[in-house]
This record gives sequence, C-alpha cells and structure tokens, in this order.
Amino acid sequence: MKTIERFDIFEIRLQGKKEGNPFADEWIKGEFVCESERKIVSGFYNGDGEYVVRFMPSYEKEYQYRIFGSYSEKEEKGEFLVVCNTGNNHGPVKVANQYHFTYADQTPYYPFGTTCYAWTHQVKNSQDSTIESLKQSPFNKIRFCIFPKHYDYNLYEPITYPYVGVPCSIKNLKRDNFETYLPSNPENQWDFTRFNPKHFEIIEERIKELMDIGIEADIILFHPYDRWGFSTMTPLQDQFYLKYVIARFSAYRNVWWSLANEFDLCPAKSIADWEEIARVICEEDPYERLRSIHNCKVLYDYTKEWITHCSIQRTEIHLSVVNTKTWREMYQKPVVLDEVGYEGNINHFWGNLPAKEMVRLFWMTTVRGGYCGHGETYVNKQDKLWWSHGIRLYGESPKRIEFLRKIVEEVPMGGLEPAEIPRWSDNVATASHPDYKGNYYLFYTGISCPAFLEFFMRTDKKYRVELIDTWDMTINRLGIFSGTFQIDLPSKPYMAIRIQAMEEK
Amino acid sequence: MKTIERFDIFEIRLQGKKEGNPFADEWIKGEFVCESERKIVSGFYNGDGEYVVRFMPSYEKEYQYRIFGSYSEKEEKGEFLVVCNTGNNHGPVKVANQYHFTYADQTPYYPFGTTCYAWTHQVKNSQDSTIESLKQSPFNKIRFCIFPKHYDYNLYEPITYPYVGVPCSIKNLKRDNFETYLPSNPENQWDFTRFNPKHFEIIEERIKELMDIGIEADIILFHPYDRWGFSTMTPLQDQFYLKYVIARFSAYRNVWWSLANEFDLCPAKSIADWEEIARVICEEDPYERLRSIHNCKVLYDYTKEWITHCSIQRTEIHLSVVNTKTWREMYQKPVVLDEVGYEGNINHFWGNLPAKEMVRLFWMTTVRGGYCGHGETYVNKQDKLWWSHGIRLYGESPKRIEFLRKIVEEVPMGGLEPAEIPRWSDNVATASHPDYKGNYYLFYTGISCPAFLEFFMRTDKKYRVELIDTWDMTINRLGIFSGTFQIDLPSKPYMAIRIQAMEEK
Repeated sequence: MKTIERFDIFEIRLQGKKEGNPFADEWIKGEFVCESERKIVSGFYNGDGEYVVRFMPSYEKEYQYRIFGSYSEKEEKGEFLVVCNTGNNHGPVKVANQYHFTYADQTPYYPFGTTCYAWTHQVKNSQDSTIESLKQSPFNKIRFCIFPKHYDYNLYEPITYPYVGVPCSIKNLKRDNFETYLPSNPENQWDFTRFNPKHFEIIEERIKELMDIGIEADIILFHPYDRWGFSTMTPLQDQFYLKYVIARFSAYRNVWWSLANEFDLCPAKSIADWEEIARVICEEDPYERLRSIHNCKVLYDYTKEWITHCSIQRTEIHLSVVNTKTWREMYQKPVVLDEVGYEGNINHFWGNLPAKEMVRLFWMTTVRGGYCGHGETYVNKQDKLWWSHGIRLYGESPKRIEFLRKIVEEVPMGGLEPAEIPRWSDNVATASHPDYKGNYYLFYTGISCPAFLEFFMRTDKKYRVELIDTWDMTINRLGIFSGTFQIDLPSKPYMAIRIQAMEEK
Repeated sequence: MKTIERFDIFEIRLQGKKEGNPFADEWIKGEFVCESERKIVSGFYNGDGEYVVRFMPSYEKEYQYRIFGSYSEKEEKGEFLVVCNTGNNHGPVKVANQYHFTYADQTPYYPFGTTCYAWTHQVKNSQDSTIESLKQSPFNKIRFCIFPKHYDYNLYEPITYPYVGVPCSIKNLKRDNFETYLPSNPENQWDFTRFNPKHFEIIEERIKELMDIGIEADIILFHPYDRWGFSTMTPLQDQFYLKYVIARFSAYRNVWWSLANEFDLCPAKSIADWEEIARVICEEDPYERLRSIHNCKVLYDYTKEWITHCSIQRTEIHLSVVNTKTWREMYQKPVVLDEVGYEGNINHFWGNLPAKEMVRLFWMTTVRGGYCGHGETYVNKQDKLWWSHGIRLYGESPKRIEFLRKIVEEVPMGGLEPAEIPRWSDNVATASHPDYKGNYYLFYTGISCPAFLEFFMRTDKKYRVELIDTWDMTINRLGIFSGTFQIDLPSKPYMAIRIQAMEEK
C-alpha cells in the first residue's frame, strides 16, 4: 500500500475526455475517507486529456478513496496509508491563541514574511535563484500573485499566461506611459474558459518547493496592476478561475489565500464582489486555508467572519506600525502588517526605506503583538527588484530580521502581546501565555537614545536582564535585578532590554 | 522732549501709597494719546511705594500722556516723541497670510522656537549663560514659565517665588517620589494678594534681553508641574495674577501669551476656566499680543476666536508632524508644533530623540506649511537640562535648524505651504505667496533613501534645481531643467531638492 506523511499530498492523475472544452464541460472529484475524516475534493483538468485530483490527509490512518465525475465512465478506487509527519512538515498553519499562529502539529509559527509579487512569472533561472535566496533568508512566508504584474519596473511579459489567448501589444510601453495601459485594452484576446495549465504548473511546483523549505505561500488571487484584463473579469469568470485555483493548489499545506493585493485599487470590484469571492473560497476549499485580503489606502473590514487574520498595508508611510495594538483590539485577530514600506532606494516613496527603518518597523510591530512583513527594492543594473522579481537580496535588514525571529522564537510558550507598564511608552511586550505573562518582558527603544532607563518590577521576584543591540545583533547579560532599578544604556537607537523572571526554586 | 523708538517701551516710575496692601487696594493707569492712537493701560505696584506704568507706542508721532489712579492724589502728565524703529526692532509679531507671521514693520517672521521652562528661576549665572547660548543659536522664540517647575530633574527651589509666603518642605523629596508632592500640600502658605516684585522683575529683565537679541518670549501663564499650589488658585486669584502679569509684561513687544503648558493636565481648571482666562487676557492686554494654549494629550479647540495660532504638542511621539496639513485645514491658523519631542538622552521617552530625528521633524513640519519647536535634554553631571534650566546646548540639531531657517528665509515673499504634486508624497512645499506658488518647490526625502527621483514640471518653464543635504548642510546646484526630468540622488536619508522657476526675460 502506498504510504505518505500526514499533511503531504496524495495525488492521482487519470486520463479522461479531451473533446470540446474539458475545463468548462467536465468535472472530476475525489472522496477520501478514514476513521477520522471524510472529504470530497474537486480535481482539475490539466490539458492533453489528463485529470488530476489532490488530497491532503490530516490523520495518521488508512485512507480509502474513489474518484468520480463526468471526465470518465469508470470510477477509480484505492487506498493509502498515512504516517507521522517528519522534518519540516508540521502541517498547515492555523490561528492560535487569538493573535498568533501554530502549525497543525502544535509547533508555534511566527510569520516573518517577504513579498516577491511576480517571481513565478520570471524565467526559470530567476525562479531558481529566488528559491536559493529564500533558503538563506529568515523568511517563512512569501506573498506572490497568480496573475502577472503590470507596473513600473514590470513592463515585460510574463513567461506564461493563465489563459489561452493573445495579450495586447506593448511595443510603445515605457516607464513614463505605463499608467496609460489599461486592462480594458481591446487588443487583449483571452478565452476565459480555457486555462493554460503550464502557468499553474509552474506556480504549483514553486509552492511545493516553498513547502519543502518551510515557507508559507501567501497566494494573491487578484490585484489591480494589470494591462491584460485579468482584474476586470466578470463574477462568473472569477468564480471559474477560483475553483480551478483551489482544485489545483489547496491541497498544499503551505497555501494561504490572499483575496487581493490592494483590493481598494480594483475599480471593477465592489465589496459585494469581494464577499462573493470569499464565499466561493470558503465553499470550495476543503482545508480552510488561512484567508485574508490586503489593502492600499482603506482597510478592509477585518471583523468579517471569513477573514482569519489581518493582512494590512500601512496607510501612512513611517506611521502605521504604531496602530498594531489598535488593530488587535479592533479586529480581535492576528495582525500581520504585510506591507510597511520596503528597504531600498527606488524613486517611489514606499520603496526607499533605509535598512534601519525596515528593522525598526519589524521591532515596533513585534513589541505591539503583531507581525511585520519585509520587502526590498534596490535599484540594480538588471532592473530586477526582489519586491517583484525575486532573484537576489541586497539589503541589510534580512539578517537583523533573522536575529529578531530568533528572539521571538525564544519567547516562552509562543507569542508576544503588548504590555502595560507604568511610566513606560508603548514599546514593550510581554509573553502572551498566561503562565509567562509578567515573567517575560521585551522593551524596545526604537529611535530613542536614552542614556539610562528605570524599571519598576516586582520586589518579590528576581529578573535576569539582558541588553540587546537590535542593529549590531548582540545580547549582553547585565545581571540579576529586582524591584525598582536603573539600567545604563549607550545613548544609541535600536536597543532592546529583555527581562525574564527567574524560576522559583 | 524724551525720544523713543516705535515699539520700544515708554516707562514711568512714580511714588505712591504704601500703606495696607497696595497690590490689592490701589490702582494706577496711564492714558497715551497721539494723532493715530489712544490707549489706556494699567500700571502696577512694584513694592516700596513704587508704581510703574509701561507703554509701547505703535506710531512715529508725538505722544501725550497722563497717569492717574488711586495710588496718588495728583495726576502726572507729559509727552514724548516716537521715532522710527531701527536694528533688531521690527515691532511685535502678528499673524500674516493666514498661516504665517510677520513683524509689525512687515519684516517676515518665521518662528524657530526652543523651550527652557524654568530658566528664569535659576541662579543669575545660569540665566546669563542661557542668554549667551541663545545668542549663538538659531532660535527666535523661547517658551518659559512664570511659575516655577516641579518635576523630574526639577526638584530644587526656584530663586524667587511669585508671592509672599512659605513653600512646603522638600526635605524628603527624591526622584522616585516627586509625584507624591502635590499642589494641595497644606505646608504651602502664600498670600495670593501680595506679589513678590523681584520674581517678576527678574523675568521682565530677561524679556527685555530677549527682545534686544531678536527673540520672542512665549510666556507660559499656567502649568501643571507644581508642588506650591500655583496651579490650583481660585478663578479670582488667577484673574488678580493675570492683571498683574499683563500690566508688567504686555508692553514688551516680544511677548506672546501661552495660557498653559499642557492645559489638559491641570485638573483644577475646566475649559470654562481657560476660556475665562482668555477673556481676561483679551480685555486687559492693550496690544493684542499673540495668544495660544499648549496641550499634552488632547488638543485644545484652536478654532476659538481668541486663539491666534496653534501651539501644539505632538500627541503620539514620532508621529504628529504628519498631521501639520490636517491641522492647518482644521484650524485655519498658523500651526506651530511647539513640542514634538526633544533631542537628548534622558530616560523619558519624550526626551531622548537623536539629533537627526529632531532635524527631520523640523523639516517634515516645514514642508507641510507649519513651524516646529526645539528642545534639548542631554544627561549631564550638573543635571541641568536645556529644556528646563537653559544654560548650555550640547546637541547637534541647532546648527541644522539654523541651516533650515536660512532656507526658509530665502523662500520668496514669505512662508511655505503644502504643494500638491502628482506622483509625489506629502513632503513637498511651495511658496505660499500667489506670485511664487508653483515657481518655488522644496522637496524633502525624510528617512527615504532614493537613488533617483522623477519630477514632472511644466514644459514652458525652466527651473534651477539644487540638491540640499539637510544633515551635512550642503547645497549643490544640479543645473537647469524643464518638463519631466530625473535627478540622481545619493541613496542617503535627509536630502532636499529645491526647484525654482527662472525669471522670464
């Protein structure tokens, strides 16, 4: 009997009808049953008469399955054995402890994400380089688009299109007229009922690779940076697309659904359209992957029940991280600030933060009980920027983000939350777990440069105090303190103080 | 005939009744008349039987005066000649062009203020040092208190008290218990009907010195940092105090009235009380000196008619300067951000900004059409901090503020306002004068580090473009440009680009 790990994919490929338009005309489903679960999942047409069904089992059990549908006269049946997950495989990420995440096997997951919007639309070598760069990076989540991107620095054609058809001409396209290329261009000729399986195959191979190196794939389903017309399809075309994407991708345990990048810049879609898209995803996705939607200038109503976590873009540059606490309270969900500006030096105001500011934004968000996202936009000769193309990181922030990630991973029992400390400002976190709340503090100075700070701790406990230089990445033990005490500091910005109560004997 | 300059002070000192309590029992007024104005002003009792009347003439005319009141049986009369103002004497500052200021003689005035709350309560040598430091500084406005200050770093007694009486004991006063010393302490024994003229004389001599070196005196009438009970006097006692202060100080042309530092931290005073204080000032002050009130956490309603300009403290550290435009629009008055945090390294979050941030806040406010204020709080052996004690400046920001002040003074025809530029963020100003609007731009990059920027200017004009390094204080001419053009930048923060249309021939 075939054996797979829990949370891995069981995949069946079958031949079936190829006449007419099987994407639209045929269907295929799989029923998967074990003692503890029973799921019916949709498969998809992969071209050339091939149909595929994918399933992710959640239990270490023996599974039976049957495949059925219009694609073929006969029903396929079989069985497989699911064994314990190992290594990097901790299962899908779920919300835990209200504002945080864990993998399904209870391993804590702290998102430290980055963004490469169009990396799967670049040539194979570039994609391979991106994977290599990600392996060396601290990032465990990446945001990217299914549809190609049209924008400054993104004026070329993608390697594949999602549909069969012909794109508009770009022979006059230049940096200073790209905004005149609109999705309504009548030169675009797409058959929105016929997918290009190659386009999706490339993406799913990369999703699999990300999965293997422990990186969550935060997949952006729609976005406004479009000259091809993919952002202005009809609701029925959107639905047809969503079902295909979900049938292909949802079995990968590292998939998250991001309904949109910058939903509020998509004039063709109303809030009702987004809610309908959310409804289709909830109905079609058998695994209830994490779901959110990303804004530009106006926040989505993250109280909506289908939204598992906030995926926020700062609405004012250099500013919004201070709202992390407010958004936690307002939305009562994990607050992921997926876009706070990018480290780099391009002309656009959102893409020329110095590394120190990128790192500061991570720390500010972290000590407020949220999670921050990275991006990078350094001008280079190839005009290939990590933020969109991936390939290579040039910046100084990733290694500091790695340093922060280690500090967060050392927080006892998972996750930080804002602490209320007398005579202290907002830059202080405590452990969110009730057993450790008040026994663990992480103070952050940001750009402030104090020569000393005073702490007002309990007199009946002893605390181990460490001084952290978040930029130089050093941790110095300062000693054991109790009650009210003063800590000398180097009058430099970007320091943190970690204070942990010592275990009682 | 005695001769004085326009906007200088004509002062008469007379002997009068000294029995009983002349502060409360007697009054003295002066009537001053020339062809163009007629003012009746109150004088004050100066102790030892001396009464003083001060008057600031606004016209170059011959003035007649008479002094009368209960202080003496006989009326004094006389005349003097007012001649043209010279040198530093440009007259009092008034609001001009809605969001800006000029002196009475039409010389533009751009406030570049600092704060030394308690400098006139320090020993004479310290006060002399403060004056010397101010002379070397770029500051042309200083905020300070009439009442002494009780706070961290301010635990000592002032050199004088405003009233006759006895202060509470401070023998157990320490840094960590100063908050337990309250204005309601019954050990305080003051006669609120008898002023200590020495206290006011010291202040007015310093006001005069400030005037002579071109610095506006932004006098804080009430504040909450009090252990003596001066913040919890009755409304009648407040009124008695205000009339005395106005009679003594209002003739100095450089006086501004700040009703409070942090009005919202004064539990003994309601908004109705502040409005009554404003009413008394409007009624008593014959010169209509500039009037405002300063907040801590909650902004005052700056739309009130008596308020000439906003005097705002940032409500969130590192944040509020971005609201400058909003406050301009909301209050339709000059926006002075008198407190945005201080350069320094003390333990308090508001007092440990690095110099670069202090300078950035000045620039951010300036390009949004507002005016920013300086303060400094460096730990030193004497525990004497500029913010409160004055004496000496240690910081790196003042010379950069001087550099900015020069740039602002070079703006044609006075004052900057926010500019709306396509594809550009909020950090750009244009000249507010209609003749120069659109012909002068000042772009500021803040912490952004672009390698280049694109500008979309008119094609029918030529522009002189300069690159300004706001930290290194250099200005480099880049050449003449027109239409759409690109400027290379050094990928460093704190740059500015000045673009000025060339005169048409």
